[in-house]
Amino acid sequence: MLLFKTDAIVEGIHFPKTTPPEKIGHKALGRCLSDIAAMAGTPTAALVTLALPRDFDPGFVEAIYAGLNALARRHEVAIVGGETTTNPERMLISVSVLGTVAKGKCALRSGALAGDAIFVTGELGGSLSGKHLEFEPRLAEARWLAENFSPHAMMDISDGLAGDLRHLLQASRAGAELLSSAVPISRVVRGRRREETGDGARPQAPPPHTGGYKPPLLAALTDGEDFELLFTVGSQHAVPLLDAWKKHFPKLPLSCIGKVTAGSGMTIRDKHEIRPLTAHGYTHFA
Amino acid sequence: MLLFKTDAIVEGIHFPKTTPPEKIGHKALGRCLSDIAAMAGTPTAALVTLALPRDFDPGFVEAIYAGLNALARRHEVAIVGGETTTNPERMLISVSVLGTVAKGKCALRSGALAGDAIFVTGELGGSLSGKHLEFEPRLAEARWLAENFSPHAMMDISDGLAGDLRHLLQASRAGAELLSSAVPISRVVRGRRREETGDGARPQAPPPHTGGYKPPLLAALTDGEDFELLFTVGSQHAVPLLDAWKKHFPKLPLSCIGKVTAGSGMTIRDKHEIRPLTAHGYTHFA
Repeated sequence: MLLFKTDAIVEGIHFPKTTPPEKIGHKALGRCLSDIAAMAGTPTAALVTLALPRDFDPGFVEAIYAGLNALARRHEVAIVGGETTTNPERMLISVSVLGTVAKGKCALRSGALAGDAIFVTGELGGSLSGKHLEFEPRLAEARWLAENFSPHAMMDISDGLAGDLRHLLQASRAGAELLSSAVPISRVVRGRRREETGDGARPQAPPPHTGGYKPPLLAALTDGEDFELLFTVGSQHAVPLLDAWKKHFPKLPLSCIGKVTAGSGMTIRDKHEIRPLTAHGYTHFA
Repeated sequence: MLLFKTDAIVEGIHFPKTTPPEKIGHKALGRCLSDIAAMAGTPTAALVTLALPRDFDPGFVEAIYAGLNALARRHEVAIVGGETTTNPERMLISVSVLGTVAKGKCALRSGALAGDAIFVTGELGGSLSGKHLEFEPRLAEARWLAENFSPHAMMDISDGLAGDLRHLLQASRAGAELLSSAVPISRVVRGRRREETGDGARPQAPPPHTGGYKPPLLAALTDGEDFELLFTVGSQHAVPLLDAWKKHFPKLPLSCIGKVTAGSGMTIRDKHEIRPLTAHGYTHFA
């Protein structure tokens, strides 16, 4: 079965003007590869469109391609063409990727079943501190999962765990109950000083002009651009999966963060209470 | 065999800001389909990326898709996805298309042989007066050609006949001799008033600020955005091809404009002289 995905990144929106060009190239291709990983596919060929201001520096463009090519080589993707055009005010890079997946192995968002265990790879939150320009698409991991544990539903996390889990559950017509202590919070977020993280409980945007941060759990649930895998498997596979994962991918954490439920609600539970979870975070009951 | 092409158009560069949105959509997809036609392929699926200013009008975007979908339906191309992102200063549309072609039928630029007859479909020049937003990709014509007359080399004309013939000849390591009276000059160019067309002989850019025009032949050779087919066939097929074409495509002119030669030069001949032809037009011998 053929997979066909496209994704564009824009200067000043998806990356700051000061981003090293290699990382721009990496991110442009990486986002498409993460989409292919989400379906347990194997990317084969890519086309790259660079839309550049008229006064672009050819060395800068070569460095974009260097970042892009390094990632492509690592995952055996052929950059088969593309074009350069003009976008006077800012750089825009659009990448299209072709991939393949065996018909029975393609993972969709829509297959989660009540009772499934919900997993995420890696650690979540704080991606804008650097990971969003350096993440490794979880291609090998996704294929291994499809081959060995047939996830009922899978996707990559680009909008944040809470928002993307909402997408997966809507497609599957199901709900979920998460355990707050099981959500893997990234080192970057955990390392932020306590006084910067607000009261650590109520959801809040960073205070304007102070550079303050969301509480760590909220950051992990909503920051986005994690490019990790979110998937569900039948609960009987949860423990064997965790055991086998440790052997195959010892460097990448895998976390069981909760379970799929009947109905359509999302909740998150900690020691003290169960709170409703929305795409934008959790709220206290009034 | 799989074909995979991408093309982007940018507001203010490939179409004016005042272009009707249906025509923007038509052109965005049409350029990619013309690329597939150039290889005698059949397009199957397309992805569309719209990069839009933040204050875009949803009705305008729907109208872009209406133009795009009408063309897609006519050629049985499935729009299978895409995305919308932000490009604050101007609209940019990037389209990727997948297609197929039987291995032995794929036409490349590189197969022209000395002695081949050179053909173009349609009429050339003046596309910016309107055709560049309304052209019909020559998909059926190209497939019919590949099926019945196995062109040695083929491409679509996007940069102008002179420039694209140069590309084809370079890829084929050959030269060409054109006959100026055989070059099909578009009605738009022919309809321009004589006093607006300069002296009709020396190549010249439109006089600045006067709205004047190139001489008609130069316009047909260099205007670009014709999206017609340029191809070569063995000379023994020239007359049978012209006969069969008239029966199959009575509404679309087909012109034999010259022949492929050994060596690398391009010349154009009229009653009085043979002139060197470059990608930018012809010149008089000094």
